[in-house]
Amino acid sequence: MPVVDEFIKANSTYASDFHKGGLPLPPARKVAVLACMDARLDPAKILGLEEGDAHVIRNAGGRATDALRSLVISELLLGTQTIVIIHHTDCGMLTFSDEDIHKKVRQELHADADHISFLPFTDLEQSVRDDIAYLKATRLIPDSIEIRGFIYDVKTGRLNEVQ
Amino acid sequence: MPVVDEFIKANSTYASDFHKGGLPLPPARKVAVLACMDARLDPAKILGLEEGDAHVIRNAGGRATDALRSLVISELLLGTQTIVIIHHTDCGMLTFSDEDIHKKVRQELHADADHISFLPFTDLEQSVRDDIAYLKATRLIPDSIEIRGFIYDVKTGRLNEVQ
Repeated sequence: MPVVDEFIKANSTYASDFHKGGLPLPPARKVAVLACMDARLDPAKILGLEEGDAHVIRNAGGRATDALRSLVISELLLGTQTIVIIHHTDCGMLTFSDEDIHKKVRQELHADADHISFLPFTDLEQSVRDDIAYLKATRLIPDSIEIRGFIYDVKTGRLNEVQ
Repeated sequence: MPVVDEFIKANSTYASDFHKGGLPLPPARKVAVLACMDARLDPAKILGLEEGDAHVIRNAGGRATDALRSLVISELLLGTQTIVIIHHTDCGMLTFSDEDIHKKVRQELHADADHISFLPFTDLEQSVRDDIAYLKATRLIPDSIEIRGFIYDVKTGRLNEVQ
């Protein structure tokens, strides 16, 4: 079965026993989670989130610069007060440089992505520290917002805080 | 208990019974899901995803322009072949304009975000169509990638495809 048909079938099962239709829009636990898009990392399972609990923002690497628009909306319009950043071991972002991907785009897509920074990194802990520092520095996230950063270990399922 | 301490406790429980440490980096089902960050929407539950199945990219509104960097990495470096876009009913993005949020940033943060488009929309179905059209038009997503778009109904738990 094509994957989209599988999704439609799975959703039909989910909707047939759905009892969460009355949840409010603002996140109940007043938190925005920013995590990598990696397939092995399920923020809800890792953190014990239920529907309605938290905004979940995800992108390649879980990078903060790429999430600023969403974080401002989360904090300023929807009242979240904490940001939790989650990067992870064995991340694809450790395996390429901007030059590599710019070249691959030219060769395989016959297109030009030189204007895009793909935000790879070479040091996992430093990538978390950089993203915390970026959010602490921007005036678009007020100082009252708590910002914490973690590395998720895909081998053990465990979160380790980056100090 | 502060929310981050609750997360650390929940993660300890998750990690204590973790048996998925051997999953490969590329998504098994070769799909990238692009969904809104909304707290009521859990892509894994809605679509029946297990750890390792799919990239999950999330931002305010589930907007494609904001996800292009991640989608290029997903397709070009990690082999996904399908993109599933999920916007949803009662979305916060229907409730404000760029002017509104630019003004609120000035008033409440004493900062300037006029250079940021926050990508709100006034027509939910059209927002899905616009994002599909954007991804079909960009040369950075090859024509071979299947792109489908859905609206998730937060009252019923059901996905409805946008044609």
